[in-house]
Amino acid sequence: MSGDERQIRELVSTWLEATKAGDVDKVLSLVTDDVVFLVHGQPPMFKKEFAAASRAQSGAKRPEIDGSCEIQELKVIGDWGFMWTKLRVSVTPPGGEQMTRAGHTLTIVHKQNGKWRLARDANMLVPADS
Amino acid sequence: MSGDERQIRELVSTWLEATKAGDVDKVLSLVTDDVVFLVHGQPPMFKKEFAAASRAQSGAKRPEIDGSCEIQELKVIGDWGFMWTKLRVSVTPPGGEQMTRAGHTLTIVHKQNGKWRLARDANMLVPADS
Repeated sequence: MSGDERQIRELVSTWLEATKAGDVDKVLSLVTDDVVFLVHGQPPMFKKEFAAASRAQSGAKRPEIDGSCEIQELKVIGDWGFMWTKLRVSVTPPGGEQMTRAGHTLTIVHKQNGKWRLARDANMLVPADS
Repeated sequence: MSGDERQIRELVSTWLEATKAGDVDKVLSLVTDDVVFLVHGQPPMFKKEFAAASRAQSGAKRPEIDGSCEIQELKVIGDWGFMWTKLRVSVTPPGGEQMTRAGHTLTIVHKQNGKWRLARDANMLVPADS
């Protein structure tokens, strides 16, 4: 495994850990300024909207979020890379029931100033059994 | 616009024309052998399954298929590239009603032997008004 590949895998695990910990600043440091999130049935989400949505879910009453990600393919092309994954995310609102979504993602990553960041993300998760 | 960018845009328009014409061989010539199609709620589709599904929809009783694609961003990185698009596809089965799906795609393209082909595709289309 190349150093770049290892660093991209670390980006994924850091993403999951920071999301679980509700560390919004950390999560935002893992995406490029021109990041685009694509989801079915919704308009594209850019960094500003992503930051607002993330902050709205942070704080004392934030939901418990847990995720697991299996990288199915990872390809590095210079300072760019892409991967597709099997992702599973469970969200439990305070006092509420756990909701699980699972499916695939296709993600573009970009190395800027020596650091890999998430740059474009297609999320195809659908409701799944917990 | 670079020659590569123009050729990738031609790949998209050829794809739409070949799909509309029901020219399965042409469509299959536009994808890499290791192509992966990702859609929400379904397992990944590889070239063999994509070819079978395409052939099942060809022939005299094939549905009318019409599509339009607006490329929102296109980036070339050597022999690889990615783009995200707004795609709209209408399918009318023989004697049936038109069904329209619309949404975004995130697509990886790859230049092989001087020809750009579709290599990985995330399709986030949902039912839309015709």
